[in-house]
Amino acid sequence: MNINTPSPRLLSPEQIAQFKAIVGDKYAVTEQAEIAPYVTEDRNLFHGCSPLVLRPGSTAEVSAICKLASEHRIALVPQGGNTGLVGGQTPLNGEVVISLRRMDRVRESDVESNTMTVEAGLILQNAQARAAAIDRLFPLSLAAQGSCTIGGNLSTNAGGTAALAYGLARDMALGLEVVLADGRVLNLLSKLKKDNTGYDLCNLFIGAEGTLGIITAATLKLFPKPRAVATAFVGLQSPAAALKLLQIARNEAAGSLTSFELIADIALDFSVRHGIGIRDPLQSKHQWYVLIELSSSRDDAGAALEAILEHGMEDGIVDDAAIAASIQQQEAFWKLREEISPAQKPEGGSIKHDISVPVAAVPDFIEAANAAVVQLIPGARPVPFGHLGDGNIHYNISQPIGAETAAFLAQWHEVNAVVFGIVLKMGGSISAEHGIGVLKRDELPAVKDKVAIELMRGIKAMLDPLGIMNPGKVL
Amino acid sequence: MNINTPSPRLLSPEQIAQFKAIVGDKYAVTEQAEIAPYVTEDRNLFHGCSPLVLRPGSTAEVSAICKLASEHRIALVPQGGNTGLVGGQTPLNGEVVISLRRMDRVRESDVESNTMTVEAGLILQNAQARAAAIDRLFPLSLAAQGSCTIGGNLSTNAGGTAALAYGLARDMALGLEVVLADGRVLNLLSKLKKDNTGYDLCNLFIGAEGTLGIITAATLKLFPKPRAVATAFVGLQSPAAALKLLQIARNEAAGSLTSFELIADIALDFSVRHGIGIRDPLQSKHQWYVLIELSSSRDDAGAALEAILEHGMEDGIVDDAAIAASIQQQEAFWKLREEISPAQKPEGGSIKHDISVPVAAVPDFIEAANAAVVQLIPGARPVPFGHLGDGNIHYNISQPIGAETAAFLAQWHEVNAVVFGIVLKMGGSISAEHGIGVLKRDELPAVKDKVAIELMRGIKAMLDPLGIMNPGKVL
Repeated sequence: MNINTPSPRLLSPEQIAQFKAIVGDKYAVTEQAEIAPYVTEDRNLFHGCSPLVLRPGSTAEVSAICKLASEHRIALVPQGGNTGLVGGQTPLNGEVVISLRRMDRVRESDVESNTMTVEAGLILQNAQARAAAIDRLFPLSLAAQGSCTIGGNLSTNAGGTAALAYGLARDMALGLEVVLADGRVLNLLSKLKKDNTGYDLCNLFIGAEGTLGIITAATLKLFPKPRAVATAFVGLQSPAAALKLLQIARNEAAGSLTSFELIADIALDFSVRHGIGIRDPLQSKHQWYVLIELSSSRDDAGAALEAILEHGMEDGIVDDAAIAASIQQQEAFWKLREEISPAQKPEGGSIKHDISVPVAAVPDFIEAANAAVVQLIPGARPVPFGHLGDGNIHYNISQPIGAETAAFLAQWHEVNAVVFGIVLKMGGSISAEHGIGVLKRDELPAVKDKVAIELMRGIKAMLDPLGIMNPGKVL
Repeated sequence: MNINTPSPRLLSPEQIAQFKAIVGDKYAVTEQAEIAPYVTEDRNLFHGCSPLVLRPGSTAEVSAICKLASEHRIALVPQGGNTGLVGGQTPLNGEVVISLRRMDRVRESDVESNTMTVEAGLILQNAQARAAAIDRLFPLSLAAQGSCTIGGNLSTNAGGTAALAYGLARDMALGLEVVLADGRVLNLLSKLKKDNTGYDLCNLFIGAEGTLGIITAATLKLFPKPRAVATAFVGLQSPAAALKLLQIARNEAAGSLTSFELIADIALDFSVRHGIGIRDPLQSKHQWYVLIELSSSRDDAGAALEAILEHGMEDGIVDDAAIAASIQQQEAFWKLREEISPAQKPEGGSIKHDISVPVAAVPDFIEAANAAVVQLIPGARPVPFGHLGDGNIHYNISQPIGAETAAFLAQWHEVNAVVFGIVLKMGGSISAEHGIGVLKRDELPAVKDKVAIELMRGIKAMLDPLGIMNPGKVL
């Protein structure tokens, strides 16, 4: 899977000097040792290289960089917290990196309008904290929140654990500021929920992974802070039972249902075995688990959760359930969920998928994919878990016990083909949350509507005629 | 304001025959008497003309029509229920009309995935009924719902009275099928909430008012039917008081707050005076009113509403309130609200605006606009009402009592300039819900970011290089 390390593209000393003049010497990184953290990533899957990392401090500087890059046809890779999972943020062909991290101001917050206008480099966790400080909730929440940035979240249309109630990053942005490839600044910042004056341009840049322009700021939607949060860990027999419980929860609690995470027994086992201080919340083993959370602006989340679980027990769907009795216990439930992904590492190689199918198709998908994968690689251990309420399963497969990791990982594309085939037959997506980047770029034409690909190419050519914006990503 | 009646563009008999061959003689309308209902609209503001109205029965027929129109460079105006308020659906230059109304099938509904895939010509009210029949809610709700179509709702990104909780039409579509100007069919139909495989193309066509392609089908999101709905009519002293009540309601009921409508006393007076069977729900007069509605999947909507109103009374915000004791009473409250617009007719000329500003700015907007309008036209009667929760006010102005209607209406653009100036200073929009069409087309360049207009033109040129898709609208 590793993409070979490329060599840095040569920039002339004059070009480097011109870029330096825009951001100042201090913020133009040319030492390879300092560049290293920008060209590698946590999972060590993609290795890039770059002659220059620019750290602009303002939209005007980003604009000047793009203008200069256009004039000299120098390719740029925009980067936020460098936590992307598909290589979208890595300069794989020696591009200049623009790191937005210095641009992390909250430009304005408006508590009555429930909005906050922030710069792209603001770290998600800090955005959450700034909202909390004015008694509001910014609901985007995901594992990388301590380092990922709002600009990256929007450029990849991040999902996360609260998407069930609040939607994806796309749904949390009211407006954007974007610097185009030629340096023009597109000002779509707006606090308005309703604005039907012309084509929707914001959504074009959200999820475009930096290939159409650089998001430099956004107006975010804020929400009332929930007053009560109730969390339960549920044992049940099958994804089909989990789906029935989801319907019950939706009918009983609709808008208050903020998370509904499905967890296979093996995923729980891994998390308990390898996570520090993780324990199974239930007394006995079950084949499947659900982590369910309700958030309410009234004090009734606990009662609603109990009603849902009782209804589930009466219907024979819920075998056992533990309701968190304290915030500590809620956090423990969530830690179990969050440790699933890292806990796969000690189990050897893992072939990962981030797929979605229509919610109703999740049980069939898991059954079909498990059978197909085990047929392809006997002993392979599927570890399905994820956001059942959104039809989004992180369908990971751990290597057979005792198998050779490299040989297992060499079958990545074969496994992909099998899993994606099932996904597509069910009208699903091969990338629910993580995007295309370079990891899934070559698979995109096969899974996407042909006319859609044509339109994407047309839009790319219109907005980036020189092909300098994150080249080789997505398309 | 009336746009002069144009003359029909000449089509050769061969061309007409070719179009007829696509849809069949029965569905190609050439008699001017039968064409009339397609080229005029309810308010009698726009008068168009057309040599031919085509009523295709399938996506393939729409595609063939577009292909033929491209070959002969014949302009097309797509039309749904013909209820648009900005002339977007009217053939003002003798274009061929494509009426989508025959395409009204529900292609599939999936109760577990909470989706319904429907054709563009399905009438909104029928879409609501089809959802209700499978125990689900399709929440889009607006005055024209008995005749407007899903295709039109999406093409204009309709809002309506439930947008506060459920968003706009844009937020209710998971996927689209679109026929492009050259006849290519773009298949973006999908039941997926999460699909990060490339650029978001759906949102480009939603709200594009038929200028980029013709929406022929959509996958809609469905929601659980609320079990309890509680509605109150509240008397208070000012928009500022209403804004405070909104904050209380949001804090106490967040996701359950489905409507929050602000009504000026004069709007209530008009509705009571001219509407049939409408009466003031409160015992004494107030300067301002709010219609508030909560919907809940549990049985607690009534209790939550009472808590909000009590809190409002304790804070001295709510002067009086009536809670609807029956569905009949709820309907009576809503009828009062819905009659405001028609009730302006008997009061003489009305200059209408459909603006939005940040929610927190609504009180200042109303104060500033009222003062400016009355200064411009002494005796003019502002009738502000609308969706306070979305910052969206239908800022209408009735003529001074006894004034000459034509002279008053002649000042439409002058009044526009004054009102839009205030809107823009507050970061607002001159078209919150209704779109641009032809009514606001010439004002768009002045109010929209210059780079945004350039991008819109680029997208239009890419998708409709011959300019045959609803020409002269939006841009």
